[in-house]
Amino acid sequence: MSADKLSQWLAGEGLTSPSGKKNLPHNSSGSQKTQSKNQAPQKKQEPRKLQKKNTTSSQKNSNRNQKTRHSSSHNPTVGRPTFAKREKFHPTNFLKGGKSGDIRVVPLGGMEQVGSNMMFLEWGNDIIVIDMGLLFPSPEHLGVDMLVPDISYLIKNRRKIRGVVFTHGHLDHIGGVPYLAEELGFPPMYATKLTKELIFANSEEHGINKKLKVTEINPKSKIRLGQFQLEFFHINHSIPDGVGIVVKTPYGSLVNTSDFKIDHHPSDDQPADLGRISKIGHEGVLLAMVDSTNALRPGHSLSETVIENQLAKIVRDTNGRLIITTFASNIGRIGKIVQTAEEQGRTVFVSGRSMERNLAIAKKLNYIKYRESTIQRMGAKAEKMPPEKVLILSTGSQGEELAALTRMSAGVHRDVTLRPNDTVVFSSSPIPGNEMAVVSVMNNLAEIGVNMIDNKQLDTHVSGHGHAEEVKLMTALLNPRYFAPIHGELYMRVGHKKLAMSELGIPEERIFIMYNGRGVVINEKGVRPMSDKEAIPAKEILIELGEKLGEHTLAERTLMAKAGAIFIGIQHDKGKFKKADIRSRGFLYMDINHQIFQQLGQEMKQVFDRNYDPSRPEKALEETLRKSAQKFFYQKFKKEPLVEVVM
Amino acid sequence: MSADKLSQWLAGEGLTSPSGKKNLPHNSSGSQKTQSKNQAPQKKQEPRKLQKKNTTSSQKNSNRNQKTRHSSSHNPTVGRPTFAKREKFHPTNFLKGGKSGDIRVVPLGGMEQVGSNMMFLEWGNDIIVIDMGLLFPSPEHLGVDMLVPDISYLIKNRRKIRGVVFTHGHLDHIGGVPYLAEELGFPPMYATKLTKELIFANSEEHGINKKLKVTEINPKSKIRLGQFQLEFFHINHSIPDGVGIVVKTPYGSLVNTSDFKIDHHPSDDQPADLGRISKIGHEGVLLAMVDSTNALRPGHSLSETVIENQLAKIVRDTNGRLIITTFASNIGRIGKIVQTAEEQGRTVFVSGRSMERNLAIAKKLNYIKYRESTIQRMGAKAEKMPPEKVLILSTGSQGEELAALTRMSAGVHRDVTLRPNDTVVFSSSPIPGNEMAVVSVMNNLAEIGVNMIDNKQLDTHVSGHGHAEEVKLMTALLNPRYFAPIHGELYMRVGHKKLAMSELGIPEERIFIMYNGRGVVINEKGVRPMSDKEAIPAKEILIELGEKLGEHTLAERTLMAKAGAIFIGIQHDKGKFKKADIRSRGFLYMDINHQIFQQLGQEMKQVFDRNYDPSRPEKALEETLRKSAQKFFYQKFKKEPLVEVVM
Repeated sequence: MSADKLSQWLAGEGLTSPSGKKNLPHNSSGSQKTQSKNQAPQKKQEPRKLQKKNTTSSQKNSNRNQKTRHSSSHNPTVGRPTFAKREKFHPTNFLKGGKSGDIRVVPLGGMEQVGSNMMFLEWGNDIIVIDMGLLFPSPEHLGVDMLVPDISYLIKNRRKIRGVVFTHGHLDHIGGVPYLAEELGFPPMYATKLTKELIFANSEEHGINKKLKVTEINPKSKIRLGQFQLEFFHINHSIPDGVGIVVKTPYGSLVNTSDFKIDHHPSDDQPADLGRISKIGHEGVLLAMVDSTNALRPGHSLSETVIENQLAKIVRDTNGRLIITTFASNIGRIGKIVQTAEEQGRTVFVSGRSMERNLAIAKKLNYIKYRESTIQRMGAKAEKMPPEKVLILSTGSQGEELAALTRMSAGVHRDVTLRPNDTVVFSSSPIPGNEMAVVSVMNNLAEIGVNMIDNKQLDTHVSGHGHAEEVKLMTALLNPRYFAPIHGELYMRVGHKKLAMSELGIPEERIFIMYNGRGVVINEKGVRPMSDKEAIPAKEILIELGEKLGEHTLAERTLMAKAGAIFIGIQHDKGKFKKADIRSRGFLYMDINHQIFQQLGQEMKQVFDRNYDPSRPEKALEETLRKSAQKFFYQKFKKEPLVEVVM
Repeated sequence: MSADKLSQWLAGEGLTSPSGKKNLPHNSSGSQKTQSKNQAPQKKQEPRKLQKKNTTSSQKNSNRNQKTRHSSSHNPTVGRPTFAKREKFHPTNFLKGGKSGDIRVVPLGGMEQVGSNMMFLEWGNDIIVIDMGLLFPSPEHLGVDMLVPDISYLIKNRRKIRGVVFTHGHLDHIGGVPYLAEELGFPPMYATKLTKELIFANSEEHGINKKLKVTEINPKSKIRLGQFQLEFFHINHSIPDGVGIVVKTPYGSLVNTSDFKIDHHPSDDQPADLGRISKIGHEGVLLAMVDSTNALRPGHSLSETVIENQLAKIVRDTNGRLIITTFASNIGRIGKIVQTAEEQGRTVFVSGRSMERNLAIAKKLNYIKYRESTIQRMGAKAEKMPPEKVLILSTGSQGEELAALTRMSAGVHRDVTLRPNDTVVFSSSPIPGNEMAVVSVMNNLAEIGVNMIDNKQLDTHVSGHGHAEEVKLMTALLNPRYFAPIHGELYMRVGHKKLAMSELGIPEERIFIMYNGRGVVINEKGVRPMSDKEAIPAKEILIELGEKLGEHTLAERTLMAKAGAIFIGIQHDKGKFKKADIRSRGFLYMDINHQIFQQLGQEMKQVFDRNYDPSRPEKALEETLRKSAQKFFYQKFKKEPLVEVVM
């Protein structure tokens, strides 16, 4: 981008400085002027030629687009032709910013897993980061506490980072902050009110809160981070205060919807701002990155209101003590439960640290209103009050090992002993990978004999991710020239791609499947995928006990998990082999007198005798012995325990 | 049971000897006479008093019941009152066999897991076994190949075993045979035609087929095994030729439905024999043990015909190459796929050993008809033929590591390279615990870009287990005096119990939740649960590489999987500590120069110096050192790696 071009770009109206202090309220008539240049023209024209012309005549462009707006309001089909028709006069065909340089959009997480969402946009000397999430481990992540994205590229380029913008307060979007922010030099952060509170709450025990600089934004905010101009739009999700992000560039807008659903009547929230989303689409979206998690599920997701009404009905109709478990972050739903409990004269006992913390935040921010006396910390009183006066709100909907409900189900909760007359409601569904843990909790509850209700029997839960019709509506409104399905397993994103092709008519060559470390490059020619050579390191980083785990650790654990370990202590007297002291731990044969170990002992002696050389370091011989032993097992069992040899 | 009573009982008509050679066809008029004593009386009478009277007058009983049959055919409501009403004149109230001794019904597997189904019935000197299944491992069964029930009680009592009866040919019902039959002295076995073939096919590689004695039965068979008289009834399931089992006793019938659904129009099979089931109910069922797997799912399951028609439509409508994965045991469905492929001129390439094997069996037994040329073994030809002429039938619907589809998806299948124009159909759903493995295969397929269809998008799969309305119908028809939900996780069985209470009106005290090793005892007083003291060992036995795994093996693997292992080699010179050679494998810190290991070395020295005693065996000191090291880690990390010390 030329300096002149850039200064023109940066002169956009209604933008805050990076300090974020000048968040002007969104004013549709006021902003029309600034944004009018992003409007679709009315007349069918040759896009390629026009494009070149337009690079130097943004004023003309603006005038033409002003006209378009008016006529399109009379003839709505003009502004919303099918993809095939609108291709030629898509707004971004007339808005190219000339040679403004490459903009790279690079996911660092969230593409090959459901979790650890993080991406960055790089444009010249400016980088902005969207979200810093963590991923909870799957069973194959033996012993690991959590996973976060690899930020080595950002660490190297941290002087370029102008800010980190968060879309909502789920841990797969904010949970990486305590592990990543410091290495990036605590860049300025931007988040909506609730998200900001949750970032601080989640980082508190890590002692970094004083160093975190988080500026509050709202869906009407406009901020400038380096050359990037950012706007936001309100969406629905399973946590309040989520936003989609619009990054304005001379090539058109880049939109990241983040996690969303479209709920026309959410009980705890405003509906997703379809008018605003449509307007963003009219102004010209070059690339839309849209949530794919439930794109393969047909139809619409249920409204959260349906779920909350069902839960309220359960609270009203249940006679005995009620235990409800849900996601601690689903503040709207929790609010409805608390409110209904209060109406019914039930005291709500809160069990589980995240649930307590989030309730306190929700009350402080006025997301939930209740009388002080309604909510109590979990304690012996939950056991002594009349059952019909008690509602326990508990963590543990995923069968987490230490969560309150897991402990109650196992009969080891300090304060509560569940009884057959209690009713336990799962307002949740198991996240893939957690199924067996949840089954185990349900079995324990069945053993006690409690009444159990889950979302297979009644509508006690709905996902926060929109189904096929919702993601299609979002993309249709955004009307992007290029499309990238984000968020979700690869098969979900590829399925979303096919949906966009078959049901929205977006041509395949304009759809990009991005990978962690391999996103897209945007310039005056359009959007292209990054090549393998351009890819950026984006492995998953394993965190255990707050520390990064070495690369081989998990591989070694996997070996031991599958086949155990064999320890061999070799005793020798200056090269004369005395004996091999073999220990078998977790291996198929545990009895050290088993003939297999006698054979191994002989093998070790032979290898030792063949290879002993006093001039070689002992370690080298140990390694030779170790490899021989490993080969010995593989040949016998086609299965290798881990082997360690000590001389 | 007195000798006289017993001889009377054994005089029942139409029964085969244990050799099974006299399988008489079921004849309803002929069997009425023998079975008439099990009919419900017409008039309301005091059951308790009558019961005592009847124990010595079975002839009178028989006459009265004969009458009942006729009148109930005129007034059908007489025979089917609600539970509350029919309680007093339930057939089994009038049929008590006097003091005929205790009959114990004891599950050995299948109660606390979905798999390894096996139970036995013991009556005096006779034991019969129902099914011998295996369980496939969950992620927590690190490295284990499979699990089978603990049969130590049966081994001790093997001279009593009169026979093993199989309900159907799924591995969770027959897969234990190769691991368990020998220890039981290869007792006589009874199975329907297909089940018998599958037992042999599954045991073949274990070299025991010559020792297996399997007698073929069919739903009309009646066999006598010791004092037990067995009959069968046809049910539907996701494999043909499944039966429910009726065990006739002087106290009434004991029924085990095994896995079933009620399909009124299965495309490949006869509908479940509701008439016969109803008749069994009329004759007097004391205890019904009914499949619980899908009892918590509301309504009816889809008919297999719907699924097979959908698959046929996919075969007809797909243009390119088609790869369909389903359960190799779903022979009806496979037959439909092969038949449609043949109609459409597609050659079916079969990939995966179990799929090949089962197709051969199905053809041999006439379950599937096709031209020889339709089916070919997987080979390079599947790559060379025109895509629209190829259908690949493949294993791997569960993401199994070595299955054909898994290898194709990873691009490492010897014969087939998948291409974007291929269509892969999952005619399956993931069994709990396999979700992540299936996701991984789907991601790989998405990477290739194939079209993917699974049962979330189209009805490509239905479970073989009936939903709530089906299990209710079964139980209503069987009209048992006592009820035991079997098959499924505890929460499913308890849910089934509640369903039976609330929607069938069976009183709670007549419903038994059985556990592995703790079933019920039946005698003239009715049915009661076994006490803890009466329980029989029923742990899961882990099998790896064909051998039973020792008890601690899995515990040690779990330790190493979570936190790795530390090996400590202690060098000393006659009690003078020289050095501790520490190795860290899969532990949080891998660098042996980390201060934590220096501290550990010092700790080891101190413990050594304090405890060295030349008169004590070295092993004792090693154990002391090991425990100190373990404590050292726990105190520092609240997490214990496995520690091994060698001096």
